[in-house]
Amino acid sequence: MTRPGREAGRQTRAALREAALALFVEQGYEPVTMAAIANQIGGYPNQVTHHFGSKDALFAEASGLAILRAARHAEQAAVHADSIESHARILIASLLGPGASSVMMFAEAMLMARNKAALRPSIQSALDRLHAVGEATLLETLSRHRWKIRTSPEMVTRAFWASVLGLALEKAATGDAFEHQSAEAVALSMMNLNQDYIAKIE
Amino acid sequence: MTRPGREAGRQTRAALREAALALFVEQGYEPVTMAAIANQIGGYPNQVTHHFGSKDALFAEASGLAILRAARHAEQAAVHADSIESHARILIASLLGPGASSVMMFAEAMLMARNKAALRPSIQSALDRLHAVGEATLLETLSRHRWKIRTSPEMVTRAFWASVLGLALEKAATGDAFEHQSAEAVALSMMNLNQDYIAKIE
Repeated sequence: MTRPGREAGRQTRAALREAALALFVEQGYEPVTMAAIANQIGGYPNQVTHHFGSKDALFAEASGLAILRAARHAEQAAVHADSIESHARILIASLLGPGASSVMMFAEAMLMARNKAALRPSIQSALDRLHAVGEATLLETLSRHRWKIRTSPEMVTRAFWASVLGLALEKAATGDAFEHQSAEAVALSMMNLNQDYIAKIE
Repeated sequence: MTRPGREAGRQTRAALREAALALFVEQGYEPVTMAAIANQIGGYPNQVTHHFGSKDALFAEASGLAILRAARHAEQAAVHADSIESHARILIASLLGPGASSVMMFAEAMLMARNKAALRPSIQSALDRLHAVGEATLLETLSRHRWKIRTSPEMVTRAFWASVLGLALEKAATGDAFEHQSAEAVALSMMNLNQDYIAKIE
């Protein structure tokens, strides 16, 4: 049995992470203070330090959670796609639309980890999970529709996430002037990975 | 004729930009001060403000220059590639190897522009140039080798840069643990863009 104290601590930790996630997604890293995060749950800044060690570490962990959720929402949006082309386009539109802030937040945490090695395990674990979940979902989607792809689902998933992170940077930098040609170019490169396979096996 | 004062100003501006580029590539945005930049050319911090307006604006401009140079070095490294597959792999290896700091610097500037709209024109102009130069070089490479691709050079170039920026984030976050599978997945997606074309036209 879990001790009541430990369970309460676990709940406080989860509540702080949710509060941080919401504030960071809305405002970005810089303006959010430990006090503002603690305040959301009627707590104190030292609770953030106690549970996460630092604002950076909390940001890294929350950003991993944010991008994993954005990925799940994108998959849900794409579940009724009637072709693998349409599936790729819906995923990208969701991740650069409603999911864009979450993808940008994770991109910021990735860059932060460059000079803060302590953040890496958390980012690496989110990235591994992103790849694993993406690969599993792709396999499930392919088998449900009897769609075929040429490259291994692992490789498609890795190329997909590298591209989406790059597109999110482009969107961060250009705002409303974001050129959808770039998103279409990525969708096209994903599709060609697939079409080529069909051409070869049929 | 250019007035001597204007010419001297132009030279000071260029020297400051070079000094800033070197310091930023080496140390990242945060630790570099205006004083340290000015000091490199025996000048004063107010010269940075005079010529660039702010540290942010100088960072954005220097990062655009950095990634354009990294792109040129990558093309030079790939000039003797004997297939389009090898060409793609050499470009990626160069941009994630010797060019990695420059690509990460540009990625950081892109994210910074999200909340600082004043930086966008400078980033947008570097991005446009990156796409235009990439497209022109790709066209030249294709015509020199009589290689063929399926998608338009513009689309290949856009997908390429989105992927490389995403890979640079992954490298920033994982350091020595960077999984080359991801780079290979991107190279593969670029190649398939090409092979598919050959399959269709021959």
